[in-house]
Amino acid sequence: MHFRVKLKNSTRHFLYLRANSTLMPQNTLLLDVLNGKPVNRPPIWIMRQAGRILPEYRALRSRLSGFVELVTTPDLAAEVTVQPVDRLGVDAAIIFSDILVIPECMGLHYELIEKKGPFFPETIKGIADIEALDSGESAASRLSYVFDAINETKKRLEDRVPLIGFSGAPWTLMCYMIEGSGSKTFSKAKAVLYKEPAMAHKLLQKLTDTVIEYLKLKVKSGVDVVQVFDSWAGVLDQQTYTKFSLPYIEQIVAAINDLVPTIVFAKGAHFSLDDILNGQSNAVGLDWSIDIPQIRKFVGSDRVLQGNMDPCVLYGSKDRIAEKVKQIHSQMGQNHIFNLGHGVYPDTPLENVISFVNSVKSLEY
Amino acid sequence: MHFRVKLKNSTRHFLYLRANSTLMPQNTLLLDVLNGKPVNRPPIWIMRQAGRILPEYRALRSRLSGFVELVTTPDLAAEVTVQPVDRLGVDAAIIFSDILVIPECMGLHYELIEKKGPFFPETIKGIADIEALDSGESAASRLSYVFDAINETKKRLEDRVPLIGFSGAPWTLMCYMIEGSGSKTFSKAKAVLYKEPAMAHKLLQKLTDTVIEYLKLKVKSGVDVVQVFDSWAGVLDQQTYTKFSLPYIEQIVAAINDLVPTIVFAKGAHFSLDDILNGQSNAVGLDWSIDIPQIRKFVGSDRVLQGNMDPCVLYGSKDRIAEKVKQIHSQMGQNHIFNLGHGVYPDTPLENVISFVNSVKSLEY
Repeated sequence: MHFRVKLKNSTRHFLYLRANSTLMPQNTLLLDVLNGKPVNRPPIWIMRQAGRILPEYRALRSRLSGFVELVTTPDLAAEVTVQPVDRLGVDAAIIFSDILVIPECMGLHYELIEKKGPFFPETIKGIADIEALDSGESAASRLSYVFDAINETKKRLEDRVPLIGFSGAPWTLMCYMIEGSGSKTFSKAKAVLYKEPAMAHKLLQKLTDTVIEYLKLKVKSGVDVVQVFDSWAGVLDQQTYTKFSLPYIEQIVAAINDLVPTIVFAKGAHFSLDDILNGQSNAVGLDWSIDIPQIRKFVGSDRVLQGNMDPCVLYGSKDRIAEKVKQIHSQMGQNHIFNLGHGVYPDTPLENVISFVNSVKSLEY
Repeated sequence: MHFRVKLKNSTRHFLYLRANSTLMPQNTLLLDVLNGKPVNRPPIWIMRQAGRILPEYRALRSRLSGFVELVTTPDLAAEVTVQPVDRLGVDAAIIFSDILVIPECMGLHYELIEKKGPFFPETIKGIADIEALDSGESAASRLSYVFDAINETKKRLEDRVPLIGFSGAPWTLMCYMIEGSGSKTFSKAKAVLYKEPAMAHKLLQKLTDTVIEYLKLKVKSGVDVVQVFDSWAGVLDQQTYTKFSLPYIEQIVAAINDLVPTIVFAKGAHFSLDDILNGQSNAVGLDWSIDIPQIRKFVGSDRVLQGNMDPCVLYGSKDRIAEKVKQIHSQMGQNHIFNLGHGVYPDTPLENVISFVNSVKSLEY
């Protein structure tokens, strides 16, 4: 695809160095793949690698009042961000945070209820609620605890591996802001797309403006890569995704990928994957339901793909894990970032996660 | 596809009449489409049409102790089965019941907890638990309340429209029996596929044997069509679906479709849709995420497809609903059963559901 020439030119790397004002990490695998440089094996990181699979995380977490304390205390967030680098030997860290800090900084407060998930005491019900939200840099700059956590993490990483920053996609953030909590269908949020599309676009644009400034500040604080998570892409279809999600993700990607490489992961968006692959991100994450040979056939071998092992494979034997790793590796070929096709599940045996990482690290091109 | 010649031959219709020992319904649209006969518009029914969208359902429900009382009392189940025929004017009734009566009749008791969903006090943990389950006809024949409800419904329908019977697919039933309740990921059930595949197959076969006998008894009691719901297909991928779900569904279809036409609906199974379409069912249900032109291109215009309007379209204006109905109609062409791509959501305005049905009834080929 012609745009890839532009993305892979030599200025990209220069900009990356300038944006972070730091040295290149010693382990450059992830950045090399994202910058189109040859590597001798795929890099690996794991969605939700910092979290309940690690005993040291659980020990720290049990001393705290709640998840929010962890997210808002830079020293603690940095500590759990670095834990999987030490324990699992992954090729990248991802800053420990939460996608819902964006509604929070825009003025829509949320809570995390143990075993239930996010809860918004107030939700977005009409245009007036959207107009009352702050947005852009003035909103994003309130999230100093995130930027401080990034600074602290960079110190503790001592340039061993790159640090990934992230944001929820505007559609996914809107889901929670309308619905007020998690949902299997997000039918309230979807109803707005059909009943009041102009209102939806107004909210999505405000979210986009804020996410862009937030990610710029993250880059300024030191993240080397950015991933946009569209966790609830899968409740839409091709028509609604094309109208209400993808254009906003593309705005974000366009604003960020001159600074650092971007990865877009839209879980469940099989219906719009062609369009996502035709977008400008440096890499596209795939969930485990996606058939890799079919995607490679569509997109060719140059596009960087991330994923996509089913997290449930990690409940199996080490042989089963190694076998699946080899299968995915042979289907993906070059230009691949190894990962799961969804966040690792909390009850996954730690030794199996380590075995997964080691299987990937023993691969060769 | 060559097997369709076999399915559409003249003996099929004869068997249908014999199995039910009743007259053909006055409204034969659904049966005609399933039997490959010409119709002047697509028939319509709506998944979960009997339920909370109807005020008369809510009124009846509020007088009862719980959902289980409704499912196990034939007169009441018949009453709510017929309600949408009277109120919405749909072209078929579907017996009001629950997919989890199958584990119940096999000896695994469950409860339905208000606003939370199904709950199994005991779950399947190992081979011994599976061996302790009853199966086949001796298990299925315990569900006399379902067969009585079908008999009673047939009387009340007075041959106006055909009656659909249904079952959960073995994989979906296994999900609940292992997990013990609903889940976003069904990771415990999936773990068994990776850790103990032989145990999974043993349970799936016992479920299949029971579902077949159950559906045969439903046909004997008077249902004119059978739909198999694989509600949790979407948590699998092509490889696991091919091993652990589709072969069992095909066993069921093969056993039933000499008696009455069968419809297979595997929600979220985009990765295995080609295989499902190549199966022997008389019709395949599509969820709303599926691109109709792409499917028609793959499968041709003869295969009967059911669906697939996003239930959330029903939150929109009547014009929006009519517009979407026309779009789906023009993409589907002939050999189409109109339906949503998922069950109707409880908070859908009744007048919009009626408007949806009327829009479909005003279509012409």
